[in-house]
Amino acid sequence: MMRMLTDDEARRLFQFGRVARLGCIVNGEPYVVPISYNFEDDCLYSHSLPGTKITALRENPRACVQVDEIEGDLRWRSAIAFGQFQEITKPQERSDTLNKLLRRFPMLTPVEAMIADDGSSPGVIVFRIKIDRVTGVAEG
Amino acid sequence: MMRMLTDDEARRLFQFGRVARLGCIVNGEPYVVPISYNFEDDCLYSHSLPGTKITALRENPRACVQVDEIEGDLRWRSAIAFGQFQEITKPQERSDTLNKLLRRFPMLTPVEAMIADDGSSPGVIVFRIKIDRVTGVAEG
Repeated sequence: MMRMLTDDEARRLFQFGRVARLGCIVNGEPYVVPISYNFEDDCLYSHSLPGTKITALRENPRACVQVDEIEGDLRWRSAIAFGQFQEITKPQERSDTLNKLLRRFPMLTPVEAMIADDGSSPGVIVFRIKIDRVTGVAEG
Repeated sequence: MMRMLTDDEARRLFQFGRVARLGCIVNGEPYVVPISYNFEDDCLYSHSLPGTKITALRENPRACVQVDEIEGDLRWRSAIAFGQFQEITKPQERSDTLNKLLRRFPMLTPVEAMIADDGSSPGVIVFRIKIDRVTGVAEG
């Protein structure tokens, strides 16, 4: 049967996960895309080229991120976190964040690897989702 | 490098996928949860117990569903579809939809299996997301 995850269990899902689905609101409609992320201090850190989600989150910074581990139809856990989009613009913090992401995802594209050498590159948006609430469910 | 999926490629992702992430709007905020589904005639068919997403979708029926195949950091494809939540209430259609879902997901819980024998059971909500637009990206 299904059961609720504790706060700690839900946070652990975010800690061990690599890909989350980020939900935001685009022109009044829901919009969901996968993101690679690094979870630290109750924030999901990620980066993105300019595009739909960044434009939307700048306008309406509320976000929902979802992670799961699905081992089978009867054995899975899923957590969602609600939070606030915050752009990281200080060069040192941008660079630190990108480098941590690259350590976790060494296969990121050469373009992104080049960017990490130059944290001030304006092309890539570096951001965090600062979590204010998590919840989750599991079965099995 | 990343490339856009064609409409056909995006639809094929929905056809072969089993779990989608459904985005909707709850109290003005994005909300994302995983759902098992069956894709047919440009609709995602699914079912749910009453709860947050159903209450939200009844109020604001616009939904976004996302599926992906992630083989690695540099080899993945993701599609999103935008559409309209429609509840399926006619007993025969409810029963047909649930039976198709059970054939695809034979491990669904006994409670859900019992419901399929009685399509008129009011506890479970049977619904479709009628897709009006798909898009997708891939790398590798």
